[in-house]
Amino acid sequence: MRSIPHPGTAELDLPTVMGALADPARVAIVRALAAEGEAACGTFELGLSKATRSHHFRILREAGLTLTRTEGTKRLVSLRRDDLDARFPGLLDAVLAAAERGAPVRA
Amino acid sequence: MRSIPHPGTAELDLPTVMGALADPARVAIVRALAAEGEAACGTFELGLSKATRSHHFRILREAGLTLTRTEGTKRLVSLRRDDLDARFPGLLDAVLAAAERGAPVRA
Repeated sequence: MRSIPHPGTAELDLPTVMGALADPARVAIVRALAAEGEAACGTFELGLSKATRSHHFRILREAGLTLTRTEGTKRLVSLRRDDLDARFPGLLDAVLAAAERGAPVRA
Repeated sequence: MRSIPHPGTAELDLPTVMGALADPARVAIVRALAAEGEAACGTFELGLSKATRSHHFRILREAGLTLTRTEGTKRLVSLRRDDLDARFPGLLDAVLAAAERGAPVRA
């Protein structure tokens, strides 16, 4: 099995992380992962094609925001909260709070 | 005199703000403005052409990160800290702290 490449924690780069969050769909994915933990990529609908979703998951993974692993035929994705908090303390929480204000979850 | 357009505070959009910070030169401008206050656009060298610098200032202004005003023949730019703090509390400080960790200012 070919392993999926991820940047190390020390390699996390602020402009690259910001770029990964420069899209509403990717912010929505990060919010959902923060709220619900690891999830299969296929469970995210977002009103997007599978190719577009895959693109977004790749951007998030390559920026170091998410960890993608395979389990059988599934791809599971989770937020690299500990790595992000270690590299950029407070940034993820501030982004999640800002996302909450920007687009409140409907009750 | 034609006024320079800026988004209102309520219009500040998280993915757009993140996109404005997805470039090292723009992060460097924001850090300098946070540290030193209002400055003439022309005082930023950054090793870039004037056209590229103008592009970066436009992206920052249109995202609502900065205020640009004219004074005589100069363009003065400042950080919209109060507006950003009102719309997305804690976000700017977290970004500035992350930028500091990512690229420490040399003594």
